[in-house]
Amino acid sequence: MKKLISSPESVVVDALRGMAAAHPELSVDLERRIVYRARPKEHGTVALVSGGGSGHEPLHAGFVGFGMLDAACAGAVFTSPTPDQVLDATRAVDRGAGVLHIVKNYTGDVLSFELAAELAAEARIDVRTVVVADDVAVTDSLYTAGRRGTGTTVLLERIVGAAAEQGFDLDEVHALAERVAAAGRSMGIALSGATVPAAGRPTFTLGDDEIEWGVGSHGEPGRERQPMAAAPELAARLVQPLIDDGLGTGDAIVMLSGLGATPLIELYGMLAAVTPLLEQHGVRPVRVLVGDYITSLDMAGCLLTVLPVDDELLSYWDSPVDTPALRWGRS
Amino acid sequence: MKKLISSPESVVVDALRGMAAAHPELSVDLERRIVYRARPKEHGTVALVSGGGSGHEPLHAGFVGFGMLDAACAGAVFTSPTPDQVLDATRAVDRGAGVLHIVKNYTGDVLSFELAAELAAEARIDVRTVVVADDVAVTDSLYTAGRRGTGTTVLLERIVGAAAEQGFDLDEVHALAERVAAAGRSMGIALSGATVPAAGRPTFTLGDDEIEWGVGSHGEPGRERQPMAAAPELAARLVQPLIDDGLGTGDAIVMLSGLGATPLIELYGMLAAVTPLLEQHGVRPVRVLVGDYITSLDMAGCLLTVLPVDDELLSYWDSPVDTPALRWGRS
Repeated sequence: MKKLISSPESVVVDALRGMAAAHPELSVDLERRIVYRARPKEHGTVALVSGGGSGHEPLHAGFVGFGMLDAACAGAVFTSPTPDQVLDATRAVDRGAGVLHIVKNYTGDVLSFELAAELAAEARIDVRTVVVADDVAVTDSLYTAGRRGTGTTVLLERIVGAAAEQGFDLDEVHALAERVAAAGRSMGIALSGATVPAAGRPTFTLGDDEIEWGVGSHGEPGRERQPMAAAPELAARLVQPLIDDGLGTGDAIVMLSGLGATPLIELYGMLAAVTPLLEQHGVRPVRVLVGDYITSLDMAGCLLTVLPVDDELLSYWDSPVDTPALRWGRS
Repeated sequence: MKKLISSPESVVVDALRGMAAAHPELSVDLERRIVYRARPKEHGTVALVSGGGSGHEPLHAGFVGFGMLDAACAGAVFTSPTPDQVLDATRAVDRGAGVLHIVKNYTGDVLSFELAAELAAEARIDVRTVVVADDVAVTDSLYTAGRRGTGTTVLLERIVGAAAEQGFDLDEVHALAERVAAAGRSMGIALSGATVPAAGRPTFTLGDDEIEWGVGSHGEPGRERQPMAAAPELAARLVQPLIDDGLGTGDAIVMLSGLGATPLIELYGMLAAVTPLLEQHGVRPVRVLVGDYITSLDMAGCLLTVLPVDDELLSYWDSPVDTPALRWGRS
């Protein structure tokens, strides 16, 4: 294992210290491993809390800021945050209008957020929860009952974050989140495993000419292993499962995220192969993100997420956002 | 070689097609491999052209847009663009106020831009050139006479792009560019080689416990190979050569760029190790970029760039920018 780290034990806290050093607009609680906005939003506004295992950066802490999250709870690498962490974050960001929990569908995450929501209710904080389960690859995998939650989480945090900023109440914010969660679809491929620092070796290994279809973001097995192929064939086998799963048509936000070790030149090439296939299906990519948005440590590969949108969703998307990893329209 | 590509021959054009699909605010000439703004800047404004070998994405095409470049010429992978390409771009973007060529110091790049500038002069286009040679690792390497040009290029394109947008004339833009080029310093390390698609194997290989200090962005040999070390030691050996080379003090823009295959969790951890060392030297990082900004295909490692700035340079930095890879302050 060759990594730019101090020690396997300190990797999460070291990264959080780096985030604090790079982004003075964030307030980082190193002890609790929670990242907040340095300037909390106004009283009477719904707050958004997410979190999950570390190793998926910039998700989630990179999406804390105006127009997205109010707080992100960082678990250990590929390990859920604790209920206490989530409760602390929820208490800290509540501005009297309630808190939305945004949870990727992994058993540990779901349990932590559920327990935190119960404890928050006892403290008279109004909490709603949206569970993202958008990965069409498999159901009931190693860490998850039902589908795994992945790329749609990023798009949801952005869209719902905008609505919260605009003064939507908790029921409205929650309904919008459910709508986005229901519409988004994701499918990924891995060209290599990821190496968890504490383990020191890849979660799985692939042959020189082999790829894993529908891999989980913690290296959970996907649908199958197949021989490596050229970009157009890979693109077809990424897009088809989304269509088979009832992907909507019309305008869409498309995200092609690298998994951590795949460079931009490859991702753009893959996007060129994906786009005409989506268009043939009647999906028009009107906003596109290409780069590392939800990763799996140093895994090579990519994740395709497609979210059909109407003009309303698009207007939230386009409104100002100011986070380390997504930023536009605001000085 | 396992890469998300169609073929080694088409990798650059495929990536450019992907950029065109993702970014309607760009206009991509696939035949000439030049990326322009879809909406050219106003007449009477200085234009900026850069370019170089592909494989360093998002550099340069990802920095085309308001507040940065007007055009970027993409060479083949790790291969300079041709004089014709640069001349075409220069002609196309000239708005009557002249064109600044921003050139990384590699022999092929310098020759192409020099010849293009001569031909442009014959066509009565006023061209000035800034050559970035900020890599303190080595002088006179495989592809270069003198120092290699690297990370400062990104910061220069941003700062000088802002000044051009604000109506500076060509002499002023050029003087500012020279000032930035003189002040910036970079130093990098590689944990792995990069695989050029056409070659199909890494440019160099390192042992399981070995890193290359001061590696070139095309895999040229650096200063030395040494055993892998923990982040604080790596950070010290990245920062010290910048100081030894006369790095200024005070406020600074700091960029820690991944080289293509190093995930954000490691980069933020490295930044946490780098920051206190810079502060001990009297450098105060007031703006920080962490992520993939100048890469070497799928090389693992990082590049540290430090640019001391005064309030004037900082005001250019902070002004609106709207490109695929750097974007803030503008709807």
